Amino acid sequence: MKKLLVGLLACGLAVAHASDAGADKAKAGVACAVCHGPLGLSMQPNVPNLAGQQLFYLVEQLRNYRSGKRHDEVMNVIAKPLTDREIDALAEWYASLKIKVEE
Amino acid sequence: MKKLLVGLLACGLAVAHASDAGADKAKAGVACAVCHGPLGLSMQPNVPNLAGQQLFYLVEQLRNYRSGKRHDEVMNVIAKPLTDREIDALAEWYASLKIKVEE
Repeated sequence: MKKLLVGLLACGLAVAHASDAGADKAKAGVACAVCHGPLGLSMQPNVPNLAGQQLFYLVEQLRNYRSGKRHDEVMNVIAKPLTDREIDALAEWYASLKIKVEE
Repeated sequence: MKKLLVGLLACGLAVAHASDAGADKAKAGVACAVCHGPLGLSMQPNVPNLAGQQLFYLVEQLRNYRSGKRHDEVMNVIAKPLTDREIDALAEWYASLKIKVEE
């Protein structure tokens, strides 16, 4: 329950930022950082890294969480009120982070 | 259908390698490279990067694809025959790849 509340608070802020006219996309990312990390690198073992993830994949998964096609206790609640525009903004910010595999 | 067959071939090889005694974990990763890339960076917009992903998350998602809890036309078929050990080996290889967010 605590995890759920933290997630709701974090992503509620993210959505507020994402829906503001002229909002800085970076703010959306920062607001979800409680679980997904300040640069999209996860803070929890059961939460995925999102940095540099494929834009289309992120949009599709957020829509699946919103519709309930993909099940997750936290993400289903967070994604439910998101508009297509808010989903696009969040996905674009995470996808814009450049990642490199260190060899 | 072509995508499905390519996926089956690629991950069939991955499983064969992962289940060999003493198999090099890298081989499992290489075999799934058709979709997920040679270093776990996706080759397709609807396929996620897996490089450096959280180990627990990868194991959980592969189990969810196997059970059908998470739906995906390709991954449900690929994951269905995997043993827990094979899932662990695949997840460990992708999680072992070190990623860095370039600022």
